[in-house]
Amino acid sequence: MKLQNDTFIRALLREPTEYTPVWLMRQAGRYLPEYKRTRAKAGSFIALCKDADLAAEVALQPLVRFQLDAAIVFSDILTVPDAMGLGLYFAEGEGPKFERPLRDEAAIRRLAVPDPDSDLRYVLDAVSRTRSALANSIPLIGFSGSPYTLACYMIEGEGRTDFASVKKMLYQRPDLLHRILQVNASAVTAYLNAQVEAGAQALMIFDTWGGMLSDRAFATFSLAYTQQVIEGLKRHHAGARIPSIVFTKGGGGWLDKIAAIGSDAVGLDWTVDLRAARQRVGDRVCLQGNLDPAVLLTDTEAVISEVSAVLAAYGTGAGHVFNLGHGISQHTPPENVAALVAAVRDRSRSYHKEALG
Amino acid sequence: MKLQNDTFIRALLREPTEYTPVWLMRQAGRYLPEYKRTRAKAGSFIALCKDADLAAEVALQPLVRFQLDAAIVFSDILTVPDAMGLGLYFAEGEGPKFERPLRDEAAIRRLAVPDPDSDLRYVLDAVSRTRSALANSIPLIGFSGSPYTLACYMIEGEGRTDFASVKKMLYQRPDLLHRILQVNASAVTAYLNAQVEAGAQALMIFDTWGGMLSDRAFATFSLAYTQQVIEGLKRHHAGARIPSIVFTKGGGGWLDKIAAIGSDAVGLDWTVDLRAARQRVGDRVCLQGNLDPAVLLTDTEAVISEVSAVLAAYGTGAGHVFNLGHGISQHTPPENVAALVAAVRDRSRSYHKEALG
Repeated sequence: MKLQNDTFIRALLREPTEYTPVWLMRQAGRYLPEYKRTRAKAGSFIALCKDADLAAEVALQPLVRFQLDAAIVFSDILTVPDAMGLGLYFAEGEGPKFERPLRDEAAIRRLAVPDPDSDLRYVLDAVSRTRSALANSIPLIGFSGSPYTLACYMIEGEGRTDFASVKKMLYQRPDLLHRILQVNASAVTAYLNAQVEAGAQALMIFDTWGGMLSDRAFATFSLAYTQQVIEGLKRHHAGARIPSIVFTKGGGGWLDKIAAIGSDAVGLDWTVDLRAARQRVGDRVCLQGNLDPAVLLTDTEAVISEVSAVLAAYGTGAGHVFNLGHGISQHTPPENVAALVAAVRDRSRSYHKEALG
Repeated sequence: MKLQNDTFIRALLREPTEYTPVWLMRQAGRYLPEYKRTRAKAGSFIALCKDADLAAEVALQPLVRFQLDAAIVFSDILTVPDAMGLGLYFAEGEGPKFERPLRDEAAIRRLAVPDPDSDLRYVLDAVSRTRSALANSIPLIGFSGSPYTLACYMIEGEGRTDFASVKKMLYQRPDLLHRILQVNASAVTAYLNAQVEAGAQALMIFDTWGGMLSDRAFATFSLAYTQQVIEGLKRHHAGARIPSIVFTKGGGGWLDKIAAIGSDAVGLDWTVDLRAARQRVGDRVCLQGNLDPAVLLTDTEAVISEVSAVLAAYGTGAGHVFNLGHGISQHTPPENVAALVAAVRDRSRSYHKEALG
């Protein structure tokens, strides 16, 4: 039952490691030809998510090519509102959408917390199938969108540049937005805990749109509900500590606040200076990030140089998980990912020598 | 020659005022029916910019409705690359585009600094016509995009969500990007100084896309060239001090660095806590901002409440110019703008009592 490689888990808990662990947001995805083949076999992204065997297959694909320190369940951040009956779908070449967004107060009043064991069974099956396929080689990450990010899509029906309907509700009917967020927080908590029961060994909350809020609104409508989720998560399961990561894209300005809600790690996008961020949070949390994903569109020389800069910015000692500052682009050449992963493993060792004596 | 209302200029210089001055980014624009009529008369946005009489007409339209403390020249942030021969155009319902973006090294080597007096005459005509129409009632702001923001459009040919081509050049051929930025910095400096000669009484640099850069890249490729512009600007003209404002959308995390490049004021988007920002910059610069423009989509009650929160966040004393954190939405009801402007004028007085003794 013991993990062969628990470097990722130890780094999240700020324990000493031999090197800086690395995984990449969206590491199982369209930049890999083998992913495209499996997705074609499944028929659609959603069908792929709902077939536990195929979901496990794509989650493991990047591990064949690259020496990664964590796998992540192949799923979507919006499964919870789908389970609430909103009807998640993906139009070809577009982002996620809902067939039945929340258009009136009655729909908001009707919202109920889904039962993960029945309504999100397919995700739990994907978790346990992937966990079992990993055979305790590296840990498996379970995840969800944050309560606020779910609400954005539930209200607008799709991604927006301004989220005007969400903002209108926030400023004019905050009571309705709080009602949605309360249901979402309970639902996300139950869902993440169910993923732990099914085999997830770490948890991540993606707050993709919290960064579009004003400072005050972020604290009230995004962070408070993410905190509620964090406080409700199982911290131990089957004798193991289950660490949590919170990632707010565009949230660098609120790092101190985010670091104070009780998660073990905070994800950082590429606009943040990792050196300054570490000084700000001190020993409170692990930091995950933060290479500009556009670097992966260049060449191996540039990739290695920028990887080195990120490692140097964090500096010596424990508490850093290497990642991108956002999901990997579908236009990324896989050889650049290989160069990144090898460079992290190789070049990070010198930053950990002292820690291990 | 003396301004009847120089509250805006004094606030930018951190001198005492009786109330907090207010203007709004894109205050002359599509949310006003009279603007739409004038634009229809002109035929297109560009034709409107190029007709000095009509440009002055639309710049003055919001002043009839609202008690604003500054006017801004009606123009575009991308006039400089257009004058370099790249061919600015606007497809209906889309953002700005260039007919001839920089596609190869030869095109980059050929780039030359345009002569504002000949190549951008139409903007200078709009400046002097608008200044004269204002009849020294309130000051007139001249502006340009930042060297980096111009480069983004010059390389991509249009706005993007990821600016992959710009990023590729930045990481693989930084020499080429530096060449473009050097030409842009010289061109923007000459252009802004020409606007001062033509009658502009304050200057603003819009760094719309600098916020998409990594921390290190922002300092090197955006801020360094904005600083070069600031250092080359005339600080006095015709006996008057010409203050400057720098606004980097998404740049809140770099406030200390931006406040150190020599501009009189720094614009802030709505994600920034104005109270914390003021503590960070101390007495070094004036702060301009930072209401969430989405607030204007709601109702007068919410507008007044959020205006009050922004005023309270800045607190007592000099050095605040009220504005939105981004341009006004075309879907804004004009009555909400009226409520905003009246609320700022009315409710800010108590924050300035002490300063005036």
